[in-house]
Amino acid sequence: MLNLESIYSKNANNMRKSVIRELLKLTQQPEIISFAGGLPAPDTFPVEELRAAANRVFDTNPKKALQYGTTEGDLDLKAELIKFEERQGVKLGPDNLLVVSASQQALDMMPKLFLDPGDYVIAGSPTYVGAIQAIQSYQGRVLGIPFSPENDGFDLVELEKRYARAKRDGKRIKYIYVIPDFQNPTGICWSLEKRKALLEFSYRNDLLIVEDSPYREVRFLGETLPSIYQLDQQAENRGTVINLKTFSKILVPGARVGWIMARPDIIAKLVIAKQAMDLCTNVFSQMWLAEYLKTGKIYDLIKHTCDNYREKRNYMVEMLEKYMPKRFDLTWTKPEGGLFLWISLPKYIDTDAMIHKAVAEKVAYVVGSAFYFDEPEHNCMRLNFSYANKEQIEVGIQRLAKVVAAEIAAHDAGPRGQTHPEGL
Amino acid sequence: MLNLESIYSKNANNMRKSVIRELLKLTQQPEIISFAGGLPAPDTFPVEELRAAANRVFDTNPKKALQYGTTEGDLDLKAELIKFEERQGVKLGPDNLLVVSASQQALDMMPKLFLDPGDYVIAGSPTYVGAIQAIQSYQGRVLGIPFSPENDGFDLVELEKRYARAKRDGKRIKYIYVIPDFQNPTGICWSLEKRKALLEFSYRNDLLIVEDSPYREVRFLGETLPSIYQLDQQAENRGTVINLKTFSKILVPGARVGWIMARPDIIAKLVIAKQAMDLCTNVFSQMWLAEYLKTGKIYDLIKHTCDNYREKRNYMVEMLEKYMPKRFDLTWTKPEGGLFLWISLPKYIDTDAMIHKAVAEKVAYVVGSAFYFDEPEHNCMRLNFSYANKEQIEVGIQRLAKVVAAEIAAHDAGPRGQTHPEGL
Repeated sequence: MLNLESIYSKNANNMRKSVIRELLKLTQQPEIISFAGGLPAPDTFPVEELRAAANRVFDTNPKKALQYGTTEGDLDLKAELIKFEERQGVKLGPDNLLVVSASQQALDMMPKLFLDPGDYVIAGSPTYVGAIQAIQSYQGRVLGIPFSPENDGFDLVELEKRYARAKRDGKRIKYIYVIPDFQNPTGICWSLEKRKALLEFSYRNDLLIVEDSPYREVRFLGETLPSIYQLDQQAENRGTVINLKTFSKILVPGARVGWIMARPDIIAKLVIAKQAMDLCTNVFSQMWLAEYLKTGKIYDLIKHTCDNYREKRNYMVEMLEKYMPKRFDLTWTKPEGGLFLWISLPKYIDTDAMIHKAVAEKVAYVVGSAFYFDEPEHNCMRLNFSYANKEQIEVGIQRLAKVVAAEIAAHDAGPRGQTHPEGL
Repeated sequence: MLNLESIYSKNANNMRKSVIRELLKLTQQPEIISFAGGLPAPDTFPVEELRAAANRVFDTNPKKALQYGTTEGDLDLKAELIKFEERQGVKLGPDNLLVVSASQQALDMMPKLFLDPGDYVIAGSPTYVGAIQAIQSYQGRVLGIPFSPENDGFDLVELEKRYARAKRDGKRIKYIYVIPDFQNPTGICWSLEKRKALLEFSYRNDLLIVEDSPYREVRFLGETLPSIYQLDQQAENRGTVINLKTFSKILVPGARVGWIMARPDIIAKLVIAKQAMDLCTNVFSQMWLAEYLKTGKIYDLIKHTCDNYREKRNYMVEMLEKYMPKRFDLTWTKPEGGLFLWISLPKYIDTDAMIHKAVAEKVAYVVGSAFYFDEPEHNCMRLNFSYANKEQIEVGIQRLAKVVAAEIAAHDAGPRGQTHPEGL
């Protein structure tokens, strides 16, 4: 009888269900207030404008929209993307662009293009779990660089040390994966100095940078900083930064459209890779979003979305300050954009174990450990502030604070020596 | 300075642009009559019904359609797929189904799930080029089984021999890839006996079968035969057949929706793989096609499409009989379904070289050699009959016949010994 274990690839045998997805199922019980997902607020979706745009596609060129399209992407959409990026100061030609089936496909393409089994990617520790999964699915590995709220981005001293050690050990390192704008999961935004320092590091060591920018336009406080992609254009313009963008957080995720910006020879390779992955991005969606973009309404929409998220983020921070135990070892980030904030709890609290107590109290978060490739921290959690409404935010944070307070009380009451071992 | 060649994966360094895609570009010059593409006829697209279905999505549940969806696929669409397959005698539950971003994504998932670098897939020689590309993109290899018009499917004697030899040589063979209904590129439809024999072979050797059925419903002559997926259900129901389907050839390709049928444990693994590939299939497209399917109009649409293609296929065969040189070594398949027929020319004609002469005469085909993993035949070509209209078919075949006749005349006039070496 067929033994599937012997037929699956190493990669498939290593596949584990995403902790986040499993949590999401758990948290779909009706009464749970979930801060676990990464969903944009549906009340930001411009339903009627999108309906009108869809109907314009049916009015003008339905047979093109319903047919196969080119792998590179719809030229009208590319023209709109070029305008959109130009407003942010990014210079692009059509050959610098590949339209993709949203960001996750772009994340899947990077290891396909650059990793042989056993090759390494430098990434934050923690970093976006979907990027880790994609890297693992090509039997790639992650060289983690400490990334903490005290530090606006990579710890550069550790980056130099760990990179030098990895090179000495003969590890093949192919690219650096970063999310400089409102990182998932921490919400941290890198300073200009750190962005420049990473670019300089990549130049010096001949490394590519894959800059993932799904939240870049979702800045609701402070000043926009140049992307590393832009910094390369302004510096030596080597074209060694690949920038990944998506409409999922600034328009709608359901249309599954994103774009990759890179120099033409890399785009050409990506086109070949995409041919074998899905032939072309949804043609109807591309023409549909191009019609919407032509109205120019996306700039107001982004402003509206940022207003919405600023209010919710402020309210969540306010509720955390109001309800959480006040302690030096219980802190959270205060992001200037994006969808998430990151809470660090006392070291002895294991959020993996605590999630079940939280769900029993009808509140959910994502366990911090999900965002580490190895050596996870267990005392952190990610909260999403874009999806819940303010009433849910207050009640949810109250419930969460109660669970955390109970953990602290149990620890303080318990016998010494029973704390969670450091570094587990 | 960054040397990309040293950073690309082995896979990426091996990537070559698809011959077909490059040909398609060549053939997009306005006056060329192209039989090269694999496009469905746009006059079969039910534009107004699809517009109405899209508007019903906006009327009923737009915020769901514009949000992220589950990786498994929309439940309403799955319910419609179950009904659609049930009419053909296939028994399915929702756990047997994964909605995918059309067939090419399914083809990309198979090597991701089953192949480690160097592992083998058994496939027809020739077979669909997109499947070969996907296998190569995971550094997999193809064990080709001769597949000729004289034989309705694999040459079973060769299958046994080559499989035994490969096993003896220690090759790890993971699955058998077949297109039993109107194979791409040959148009061949396997007999019931051959389907049963392959299932028996797979049972006996503990191999999975990946059955690719994009054209299954596009049968315009003869009687529908059970799929190998169905034959397994009727036989020992081991669940060792994975069946790949798509709406691209029976509704529209632009919506990029297909589905995989398999036993639940395989579907569960595929769900995890898809999480890291694109999170979920286009949510709007899924709900949109579900709305269209609810009207029940797809059955008439398929009948209409089959009528359309039967007429064009008959006309193309008629024109071939009228214009092509009459010779024992110049033959073509007469498919009972699908989109393609396959022409075998005298052995000394190299269709790779001839394509440039054909394009000069303003007609295009796909070179047969594109459909081989190794040891390509060079005297064949694939013609598509679904896209061109009848007038174009007549003129195009006239032009093609002229090019072929010139090749034969040049050979007959030329000095002996200058023929194309066999097996090159």
